[in-house]
Amino acid sequence: MAENGLRDKVLSLGSMNPCVKRVEYAVRGPILSRAVELEEDLKQGVKKPFTEVIKANIGDAHAMGQRPITFLRQVSALCLYPELLNNPQLPDDAKKRARRLLAACGGQSVGAYTASPGIEIIRQDVAHYIQRRDGGIPANPANIYLTTGASDGVMSTLKLLVAGEGLSRTGVLIPIPQYPLYSAAIAELDAVQVSYYLDEERCWALDVGELRRALREARQHCQPRVLCIINPGNPTGQVQSRKCIEDVIKFAWEEQLFLMADEVYQDNVYAEGSEFHSFKKVLFELGPPYSATVELVSYHSISKGFMGECGFRGGYMEVVNMDPAVQQQLSKLVSVRLCPPVPGQVLLDAIMNPPSPGEPSYQSFVQEKQAVLSDLAHRARLTQEIFSQVPGIRCNPVQGAMYAFPRIQLPARAVQEAQARGLAPDMFYCRQLLEETGICVVPGSGFGQQEGTYHFRMTILPPTEKLRILLEKLSQFHAKFTQAYS
Amino acid sequence: MAENGLRDKVLSLGSMNPCVKRVEYAVRGPILSRAVELEEDLKQGVKKPFTEVIKANIGDAHAMGQRPITFLRQVSALCLYPELLNNPQLPDDAKKRARRLLAACGGQSVGAYTASPGIEIIRQDVAHYIQRRDGGIPANPANIYLTTGASDGVMSTLKLLVAGEGLSRTGVLIPIPQYPLYSAAIAELDAVQVSYYLDEERCWALDVGELRRALREARQHCQPRVLCIINPGNPTGQVQSRKCIEDVIKFAWEEQLFLMADEVYQDNVYAEGSEFHSFKKVLFELGPPYSATVELVSYHSISKGFMGECGFRGGYMEVVNMDPAVQQQLSKLVSVRLCPPVPGQVLLDAIMNPPSPGEPSYQSFVQEKQAVLSDLAHRARLTQEIFSQVPGIRCNPVQGAMYAFPRIQLPARAVQEAQARGLAPDMFYCRQLLEETGICVVPGSGFGQQEGTYHFRMTILPPTEKLRILLEKLSQFHAKFTQAYS
Repeated sequence: MAENGLRDKVLSLGSMNPCVKRVEYAVRGPILSRAVELEEDLKQGVKKPFTEVIKANIGDAHAMGQRPITFLRQVSALCLYPELLNNPQLPDDAKKRARRLLAACGGQSVGAYTASPGIEIIRQDVAHYIQRRDGGIPANPANIYLTTGASDGVMSTLKLLVAGEGLSRTGVLIPIPQYPLYSAAIAELDAVQVSYYLDEERCWALDVGELRRALREARQHCQPRVLCIINPGNPTGQVQSRKCIEDVIKFAWEEQLFLMADEVYQDNVYAEGSEFHSFKKVLFELGPPYSATVELVSYHSISKGFMGECGFRGGYMEVVNMDPAVQQQLSKLVSVRLCPPVPGQVLLDAIMNPPSPGEPSYQSFVQEKQAVLSDLAHRARLTQEIFSQVPGIRCNPVQGAMYAFPRIQLPARAVQEAQARGLAPDMFYCRQLLEETGICVVPGSGFGQQEGTYHFRMTILPPTEKLRILLEKLSQFHAKFTQAYS
Repeated sequence: MAENGLRDKVLSLGSMNPCVKRVEYAVRGPILSRAVELEEDLKQGVKKPFTEVIKANIGDAHAMGQRPITFLRQVSALCLYPELLNNPQLPDDAKKRARRLLAACGGQSVGAYTASPGIEIIRQDVAHYIQRRDGGIPANPANIYLTTGASDGVMSTLKLLVAGEGLSRTGVLIPIPQYPLYSAAIAELDAVQVSYYLDEERCWALDVGELRRALREARQHCQPRVLCIINPGNPTGQVQSRKCIEDVIKFAWEEQLFLMADEVYQDNVYAEGSEFHSFKKVLFELGPPYSATVELVSYHSISKGFMGECGFRGGYMEVVNMDPAVQQQLSKLVSVRLCPPVPGQVLLDAIMNPPSPGEPSYQSFVQEKQAVLSDLAHRARLTQEIFSQVPGIRCNPVQGAMYAFPRIQLPARAVQEAQARGLAPDMFYCRQLLEETGICVVPGSGFGQQEGTYHFRMTILPPTEKLRILLEKLSQFHAKFTQAYS
């Protein structure tokens, strides 16, 4: 320590948790920070080659102008401010939902803590919803845990699964490309990431042969115990076939892997011939031994689908075939954080328990929902169509979810230039794109990709006319960039 | 694996994360589970020696009948359902707040993600609030992180601090008795708990000599780097003197400890002569070298104080003197979870930025706030008064926070009986209390206590008349229990 009292920090880069240092999360990485700076510049009147920054980096529907679904917000507002129950302008079905939810809250207030896995009647409503979705296959409210968004659920599950040291450290199989929550959680928990590659040539299909390869190699250096699936895919937008899901379940059974199924985009399926099949349903339809044995957790969220209520941080997970003693440990673990945010819980309930035919909000609810979903379907097609016309860009169909993940051909000189600056080549590309056009997308390197290939992830959420302009600007940029470095 | 396909689970008690197994959280432990069962029994018409279960286990004001503060809920409801901006029954100052907050949300919707540390203008409002609280000592919005409740903030900070193996594992000094979030977080993160004991004979005061003892012993087996303080105390209700805080800060400086100050009960100070002093203020008033060197994070929450909005899961933390490179790591870490729940963010803002004199809601806001705080002050005195009349119960004054933590004398036979059943003696006592009276409190063993002493934690939140009955029932139970085992 120096005489003047200045000295090293207790907590420094050198002394801090090395696992946290290894965490990366490209969706909110340096590109976004730069986009926020540019926005600030524009506000201050600084001249730029564009008049607006478009944040196509994250699946944030409302930020892109999507309007909230009226019924969901009415139910939530009524729960937050029950004086509104006397307001004649709010519909009776929303009031009925709110009264029922308030009756289930401590002191009839959403300001009370709830049970740690969530309000009991909401867990029941979720179970009914799942049961309807899965053609009657039973769901037990005791296996439903409400969450602070799907990320929270994924983290809680992984916390249970991580154990061992050296050769017996838990290995977690994740798709590449992946949503970087997975790699971030694995780094934070000091588990081992085991990458299996999706097949870009077959529309990002998951191939069990590739799973087998990844598993075999991983067994040399860790103990792979978990298999994560994202369906519909993020960032890749593919929707898995029923056959593929069956194969994955059989593989998990044979190889004794715990299944984590990220199904937050289950309502976002656009392509003809594509259909969402839940892992739970396929598992039970396969029957024994699978249905009685394979351990599965499935995640859903209020942030995606037709509602896009990201800010509420809500969702649920369903656990299947979990050892009851472990499930008790899970219940204990979630109790430390007291409960998921109640505004998100009540909004989730309004989704699980929407207006029925005959109720006053039914028509408008269905219309608003359909409008969002058909707009998204239209934008998914538009995105692929426009990209498919650009030399040097190849884009698989956006079968589902909210993203295009096109592959971009980069001239050798651009790659060299990027490397000289210590940047991933697609980061270099995305930075220039942002500086020249104001469009913010995320480099493929933030999700993982085959060595030597380059991509970016872009949401399909901007309003159609804006999306069209964005896609055209992007196409022009690509041509210009390619020319500049050829 | 057996022929019938049944086999061991992938995830079992034997194979799961051993750190999670070690986590304990008594506030929502077995006593609460039993209370919930009893409530269910009563609902089903099962006869019990009581007609109502009273959950005095947790600081959950609304569940105990406290009404939400009108202005806070008006602002939140307006943000959730902006149609209400046209409603003439809602006051203009609430509408003004809501308009300003909505303008700061992506797409003017609370359904959009916000920046990961929270909405910028709310961070500014928090900084102004802290600055007013601390007599003008500056607060920088860049050092404010909004959280999903204080628990979330504590967890994020500890994640940064945990490192090392064997003798260099991070040691975390926590008070005993403590709020068990701390022991739970330390177990989950595989750090080393270093206990320092509060002095029950001096109204649970913190003594630096005891800190020194704890530190010296801990240095034999780990690397103590963090000192956690809870002021006002939970479960112990003491309010630290300014002198004590100065001594703690000097100690942290001398011994190079990172300070974590849990100040969530800063608005809950009742005793005459007691006053809340923030660690930040005292640190800056001490001046150099302390003010330029000591690393501090302070936590606040919307769950306590006069608002008691636990269900919203909101709060903030302020970091002081943190290494900028580490702070970048913190910002990255919180970005993985995207953002704190926006309904909690906007409610927090309404607290930081309450109605001013002259605004339409000013009078009623002040009245509602004062009513809650004076009721609590009254209940704090009542609790101590009644307990002080019961032979075998000793209760320090409840200077602040929301709990009494009385010491109970247990007959030797009761202690033996408990041990024969494998229960902590105060757990045995609390279970019987629950079964016979329906009163749910938490055994002192869940918070830690001096060997051979027994306590329980009880909230002072029930409405005054109910609290009086509860205290009398508890006193009678104590006499009966003592007699039965003498």
